[in-house]
Amino acid sequence: MRWGERIDAANRRAVDRMLAVEPRWVDVLPLRQVVSGLGERDVLHAGPPVEWMGMSGAQQGAVIGAVLSEGWADTAEGARRLAESRGIRLASCHGHAGVAPGASAVSPSSAVFVLDDPHTGARAWAPLSEPRAGYGVYDEDAVSLSRFMRADLAPILGRVVTSLDGLGLLPLLAQALMRGDELHQRCNAFSDRVLVSLMPALVSAGVPKSDLQTALETVAGDHAFFAPLALAAAKLIADAGADVEDSTVVTAVASNGTEIGIQVSGLGTRWFRAPAPLPEGWTMSGDGGRGSDAGAIVGDGAVLEAMGLGASALPGSASSWGLLGVDQQTAFDFAAHVHEVTVGEHFVLRVPALDRGARMGIDVRKAVEKNTRMAIAATVPHREAGQGSLGQAIARLPWACFVSALEAFAADRGIQ
Amino acid sequence: MRWGERIDAANRRAVDRMLAVEPRWVDVLPLRQVVSGLGERDVLHAGPPVEWMGMSGAQQGAVIGAVLSEGWADTAEGARRLAESRGIRLASCHGHAGVAPGASAVSPSSAVFVLDDPHTGARAWAPLSEPRAGYGVYDEDAVSLSRFMRADLAPILGRVVTSLDGLGLLPLLAQALMRGDELHQRCNAFSDRVLVSLMPALVSAGVPKSDLQTALETVAGDHAFFAPLALAAAKLIADAGADVEDSTVVTAVASNGTEIGIQVSGLGTRWFRAPAPLPEGWTMSGDGGRGSDAGAIVGDGAVLEAMGLGASALPGSASSWGLLGVDQQTAFDFAAHVHEVTVGEHFVLRVPALDRGARMGIDVRKAVEKNTRMAIAATVPHREAGQGSLGQAIARLPWACFVSALEAFAADRGIQ
Repeated sequence: MRWGERIDAANRRAVDRMLAVEPRWVDVLPLRQVVSGLGERDVLHAGPPVEWMGMSGAQQGAVIGAVLSEGWADTAEGARRLAESRGIRLASCHGHAGVAPGASAVSPSSAVFVLDDPHTGARAWAPLSEPRAGYGVYDEDAVSLSRFMRADLAPILGRVVTSLDGLGLLPLLAQALMRGDELHQRCNAFSDRVLVSLMPALVSAGVPKSDLQTALETVAGDHAFFAPLALAAAKLIADAGADVEDSTVVTAVASNGTEIGIQVSGLGTRWFRAPAPLPEGWTMSGDGGRGSDAGAIVGDGAVLEAMGLGASALPGSASSWGLLGVDQQTAFDFAAHVHEVTVGEHFVLRVPALDRGARMGIDVRKAVEKNTRMAIAATVPHREAGQGSLGQAIARLPWACFVSALEAFAADRGIQ
Repeated sequence: MRWGERIDAANRRAVDRMLAVEPRWVDVLPLRQVVSGLGERDVLHAGPPVEWMGMSGAQQGAVIGAVLSEGWADTAEGARRLAESRGIRLASCHGHAGVAPGASAVSPSSAVFVLDDPHTGARAWAPLSEPRAGYGVYDEDAVSLSRFMRADLAPILGRVVTSLDGLGLLPLLAQALMRGDELHQRCNAFSDRVLVSLMPALVSAGVPKSDLQTALETVAGDHAFFAPLALAAAKLIADAGADVEDSTVVTAVASNGTEIGIQVSGLGTRWFRAPAPLPEGWTMSGDGGRGSDAGAIVGDGAVLEAMGLGASALPGSASSWGLLGVDQQTAFDFAAHVHEVTVGEHFVLRVPALDRGARMGIDVRKAVEKNTRMAIAATVPHREAGQGSLGQAIARLPWACFVSALEAFAADRGIQ
């Protein structure tokens, strides 16, 4: 069999495995109970591994917040010194079957949503998150909200979802797409769907009324509270496609705020990196620009883009167009481009305006051939620690990541 | 001032009054506590007034269900005889500041959502409804669900919403449009939004846990449970535009299943009628048709269409296209046509894909001039009693209603 055919067959296999996943939310637990071998002072971050000195401002801010929330330091300055002196150990979520939204820093007592695929037992997790701490704000409010979430909110949610014996997420994700979510920057309808699905169990799970009410106000007050469930579901789907021999399908796309990287099914856990892109329209100064305080994009959310959600689902999410600065034509162009570089299509997760499934399985060969500058629906981080996010915008996945991956793939196999 | 200018100014005034309404859900009560002077055996229906013998199958079925739910007869045959012998009195909801979804028959103990406009104190109501009884099914399940809703569910919802001191609906309707609802045939995201908004109050309102759980299962189990709130909100908005001297703006569109009628601001409560239309694509027999069991459309829901929702909001509701049998181009054409025949635009209720407000205030003059065959997003009733609904489709508002109204308007004023 020629290489082309062998790779096509492998890619088909990788995507079939992705399509077979049925992500289920099964628990909420502290990270230390989910990741085996986690060190006592480990802090996990989005994207490829990066050390403290190489971290973006937003990512450093979130690490400071994590150190304060854990009580390892009393002041931001103390937290910064601890990080500089390697008093904490930094590692990538991806190395531990997890994903972090934005710059979220996940530490041992952080509460994480735990998902599994009942068919294979595979698991993935993503932390409970909120927009301020998740983009590097570490003031008193952010730290106390983080502590409330892990100490008070997480046990209630865990109790509810275990009383349900898990909550299947595919139908809720599909319904959310039908309700205008693209599921990366917009998870509003998805969050409502999850909350409504939990309601009878919320009442019956025996949580004291005042605790329940506080929990509900927090959850219902954040339009995207359950967004990390969508992210972890995408991770679980992507992971199923990993490690298929000779497959050129992308299984991870993630940015640590400094570098963005991809992983490829037939190339194990190696990252193929390029500088993390700045969001479009935010980098110019002067007329027409939206300020120069924007940092490069950060987060594991780009795995949603690799699963046909986010920018390539924008035709069905008209209410996101204005927010992201795209028009109708651009939204359909994004989808058409992703169609060109992908191998398969989801049959449950459908994009309403296109009347077809979310496109799954970016083929590195096609991405290189088509000179991809695939769009990502991104949050715009401030470039400095402690400042949070500035808005939403489109960013472009660098072509260079795909070129490096394809070169490595060919070199490994002695293909010219 | 010439007639044209005088009418333009009157229409502007009518629409400005509509735009000033802020519908608020304030209570759930039995109809008899809401409509003063209601007779003990009154049954209210959608559309212009119609007697028993003139009623469509679905509408007769719903009346039979109402008689059984009230306990005025023990069998369907008995209920039918009671109606035939004028043992009940039939009247139009519209005459009592109310609206009925589909063929719903509203009797004295029916539970109704009560809305007001805090600026004027004006009120409107619509019954709690469910798809089977609301389209004329009167079997044991339908009757017992109706009884459960009025006896058990309504008091809980009333207690919750009064504990909140009312729930403002404009923001929730606007969010639902952003989430792909067109708010007539699709109210899914709206229903979730209402339920999520109620949640903290649901817990704190002191409802016994088991009652609350049953209530939640019923409410969360029906994707469109709160659709009557959207309908009553549209009625409240439309009513605000009524009785403006010399205005040609449409303030009601409704079908009793036999005839469809419109009311016009400057023409009081007169109905201008035409035969109720059959849903498109359901009337042909043989190849390409979808069966010949369809009846003409029925319900007060068309008032939503007159407020720029439903068919003319379809560009933002891609997930409804397949359901209604329209494609993207048709959806945008519907919106463009309604733009041509309307006077104003809502600034809170916005259609995402069009990036403009819902179009308000159909001008009878423009509708006549443009030969309107305005689309309505409709439910397809079975033509016989007891059979329920068959699906959704587009129906066309007859031009003749507008012609009769314009003739009457001109005749009243001696305009040539």
